[in-house]
Amino acid sequence: MSRRVVALSGGIGGAKLALGLQRVLSPGALSVVANTGDDFEHLGLAICPDLDTLLYTLAGVANPELGWGRSEESWNFMAELERLGGEGWFRLGDRDLAVHIERTRRLVAGESLSAIMGAFARQFGLDTQLLPMSDERVRTFVDTDVGTLAFQQYFVARQCAPRVRALHYEGSAAAHAAAGALAALDQPGLAAIVICPSNPYLSIDPILAIPGWRAALASRKAPLIAVSPLIGGAAVKGPTAKIMRELGVEVSALSVATHYAGLLDGFVLDETDAALAACCSVPVRITRTLMRSLEDRENLAREVLGFAAELAAPR
Amino acid sequence: MSRRVVALSGGIGGAKLALGLQRVLSPGALSVVANTGDDFEHLGLAICPDLDTLLYTLAGVANPELGWGRSEESWNFMAELERLGGEGWFRLGDRDLAVHIERTRRLVAGESLSAIMGAFARQFGLDTQLLPMSDERVRTFVDTDVGTLAFQQYFVARQCAPRVRALHYEGSAAAHAAAGALAALDQPGLAAIVICPSNPYLSIDPILAIPGWRAALASRKAPLIAVSPLIGGAAVKGPTAKIMRELGVEVSALSVATHYAGLLDGFVLDETDAALAACCSVPVRITRTLMRSLEDRENLAREVLGFAAELAAPR
Repeated sequence: MSRRVVALSGGIGGAKLALGLQRVLSPGALSVVANTGDDFEHLGLAICPDLDTLLYTLAGVANPELGWGRSEESWNFMAELERLGGEGWFRLGDRDLAVHIERTRRLVAGESLSAIMGAFARQFGLDTQLLPMSDERVRTFVDTDVGTLAFQQYFVARQCAPRVRALHYEGSAAAHAAAGALAALDQPGLAAIVICPSNPYLSIDPILAIPGWRAALASRKAPLIAVSPLIGGAAVKGPTAKIMRELGVEVSALSVATHYAGLLDGFVLDETDAALAACCSVPVRITRTLMRSLEDRENLAREVLGFAAELAAPR
Repeated sequence: MSRRVVALSGGIGGAKLALGLQRVLSPGALSVVANTGDDFEHLGLAICPDLDTLLYTLAGVANPELGWGRSEESWNFMAELERLGGEGWFRLGDRDLAVHIERTRRLVAGESLSAIMGAFARQFGLDTQLLPMSDERVRTFVDTDVGTLAFQQYFVARQCAPRVRALHYEGSAAAHAAAGALAALDQPGLAAIVICPSNPYLSIDPILAIPGWRAALASRKAPLIAVSPLIGGAAVKGPTAKIMRELGVEVSALSVATHYAGLLDGFVLDETDAALAACCSVPVRITRTLMRSLEDRENLAREVLGFAAELAAPR
């Protein structure tokens, strides 16, 4: 297939579909734009959780037990850091550290995050383009019942326990979409733009909060399809459902479609939620969206691409 | 014993005697002042090779095979760094990394190197005071036949192969001796100041190049004793003999005594070099200085302390 596809993604859930897309598309045909609102500085290192989860997942070296970090990981650095009285709440494996240290070194030397992640992707043998949403700093903050928390304080240190009142993406209004990522939207032969089944508030909204992304998506030539991260009113993993409840939004795939209203050309619903299709204001594809096996990932990717082809066909 | 001792030391060879001293003195009676001229910034991290070798050696967690770094070390970070195309010439083990990352974080946060190493020593369970010669930046440069090299470029990257013409210690003239280290010289009950069998040019001269150290040692109240790093005209390990030849200095323990002329109250010669005693301008103690076993380290420490007691006794 010579179709080209751009996927917008957060970490774990999004990375599953990104891997499926990578496997069913021709080598080099996929560009994945990652949320960087989760990025933070820790121990002096520039940490980019979603970019790294995508890098490791697409390279086949993700940690299968943890859902984040590296396979065949060791934890001797963390053990010694804790011996020294250092901060242990954010776990950094020995292999994983190489990416953070080398990235930080290169950022300090003046390279862009896009250039660095591009180099890492090549070093990991990827044909897929892995791109940050922006080379500028955007940081997700969560307004909660215990105050405003930096994203990783909310997500890792407090394990999403505080009640969310609102979210904001500091720096997003002034940030530019990364040039490389925008260019991916203008590729000839672009067949689809896919919003992966990531958390809309934590993973996709930081991208959409950047004016350049809003504008670029509004003038798209390829169909934009979102895959619901909710199945039967529950998230496969992570705090999506909890956050929706706390924000007073009905916990339903339909709410996700509504959330992306005005952007979407199509929406992919899980077969469990087939009944919701009638209430959806955009065309819907119903399929199995739960991705347990590699085959599930490939099948969902094929469904999404088939749906995009239908939407793009002259009517 | 309630005697207090200050030792000036570089890395491996000096650390052996420091360990011997720690073992034969009462807990807390030893203060070790480390050369920091070898320190450098690598991958954005503040690396202090001699301080760390001393820390690990005194804590009993030094790598017995390598002579540097940590015991029970793993190398997954380095393997991944090299996969990413990062610099592999300076090896950093996974456990070792914790010290570099946490030190760098605390330096950036404004803590002094003295405070940080003191905290690390306590976290590693040391009673011994481990002190940098200065909290300010001093960097050893080696003028060679292939140009001026930063110390680690000479020592690790080029494995001491270039011919040395001169050495200089950038920043030393303006640097202050660390207050904590100077205070150790003023302790009541100080029984000896020991220059460990370290490389005079690479490990001890950077300390002596700091005016505050020169002045403090000149006004010392306790005897100052150096232990020869040369045995029978050869170094136990490292480039001491090679550098002496290249600098046109006779490769002999006597040259080391001469090098420290004006500072020393006593000099410890290996039994192999007993014949040199007659030519030495300061009192000499002849003993076995080769430290293979732990017992060797303790025996040499006892000899040095006994020698100091003799030198301090009213004559």
